[in-house]
Amino acid sequence: MILASCTHPRWFVAATRDLHALLSDHLHCERKAAENALSLVRRYPHRGASVDALGRLAHEETSHVVQVATLIAERGWVPRGDLPNQYARALLAEVRGREPERLLDALLVAAFIEARSHERLGLLARGFADAPAKTAAPTLGPETRVNSDLGAVYRALATAEERHTRIFLELAEPLVPARDLADRLAYLSEREAEILAALPHLSRVH
Amino acid sequence: MILASCTHPRWFVAATRDLHALLSDHLHCERKAAENALSLVRRYPHRGASVDALGRLAHEETSHVVQVATLIAERGWVPRGDLPNQYARALLAEVRGREPERLLDALLVAAFIEARSHERLGLLARGFADAPAKTAAPTLGPETRVNSDLGAVYRALATAEERHTRIFLELAEPLVPARDLADRLAYLSEREAEILAALPHLSRVH
Repeated sequence: MILASCTHPRWFVAATRDLHALLSDHLHCERKAAENALSLVRRYPHRGASVDALGRLAHEETSHVVQVATLIAERGWVPRGDLPNQYARALLAEVRGREPERLLDALLVAAFIEARSHERLGLLARGFADAPAKTAAPTLGPETRVNSDLGAVYRALATAEERHTRIFLELAEPLVPARDLADRLAYLSEREAEILAALPHLSRVH
Repeated sequence: MILASCTHPRWFVAATRDLHALLSDHLHCERKAAENALSLVRRYPHRGASVDALGRLAHEETSHVVQVATLIAERGWVPRGDLPNQYARALLAEVRGREPERLLDALLVAAFIEARSHERLGLLARGFADAPAKTAAPTLGPETRVNSDLGAVYRALATAEERHTRIFLELAEPLVPARDLADRLAYLSEREAEILAALPHLSRVH
């Protein structure tokens, strides 16, 4: 919807090479998405409509934390620790210091992260659906039962991320004139593609 | 359940004197409870069972954020900003630096905050049920409709806090021998009562 580039075709193989690492990274992505929504409630409580929307968003992201934790536990694994995320850091460095640009940029950066997550979780959904055995079976311990269909779970999660992109864009819209919003979206769209292109392909979402 | 003191009988009047301030503070309490659960997921991801329990807890706390935001919006208000919380700060100062004491104390402090919230939200539930008109009507703008019964909402929220206390205690139990847990609970119980007794009565939860 707002992305200026498509993920490189080799990304899927790198991302799924270490499924434990990928699922752990995804768990932390969902956690950080919830934390980000709650931090916007903390910083902008007086924006009443946003508080409601962001509270609901955090509510949904926390359900994803639980879902991904279940995917990990079903495989007999425990989540690994979070690692620094160069992608998010580079995007957040674009957030300007003065209001209303600061809030605008925070919302647009969140929209881009959700949009890229939507694209990549969609790629995972399609890839997992094509090769379910390869992505789950070889790493299972003897007593582990894998109940969830990774393809189906990722399809549902990808759909949610697309909705979240729209929510952040709707929260951003009233902040500045339409022309300024379009300009900023165009700029960040190019930056996001540049940032992503400069990063190595690892077993993580971004 | 684990509290060493009962809230002073004058607290209710002070807490409800400024309902806008009380509801705003309560909104931020629920937000911080969700953030605290998510920060424990970040710091202790390898504790698989905790990740699931804490993710579910954050999910429920975020639904409370939305509920309290609705109570505020129904009255034609927007949430006020968060203020420093001396109660939580003083309790968190009791968290020791080394593991497993650090995690133990973090879980027990969270249990005490939930237990005190349970007591106080219960007091609000009873007080609101006795005098519904007084707590809502005088401050309403002309076009505001108050849909929620404050007493009923607070009764439900108080019940949730009691359940959360038990969850934190259950997560703490396997960390140290039962004797050490009992000693620490006894110590923190006295400290919590001391901290609370030293604080002024304001229009906030703690």
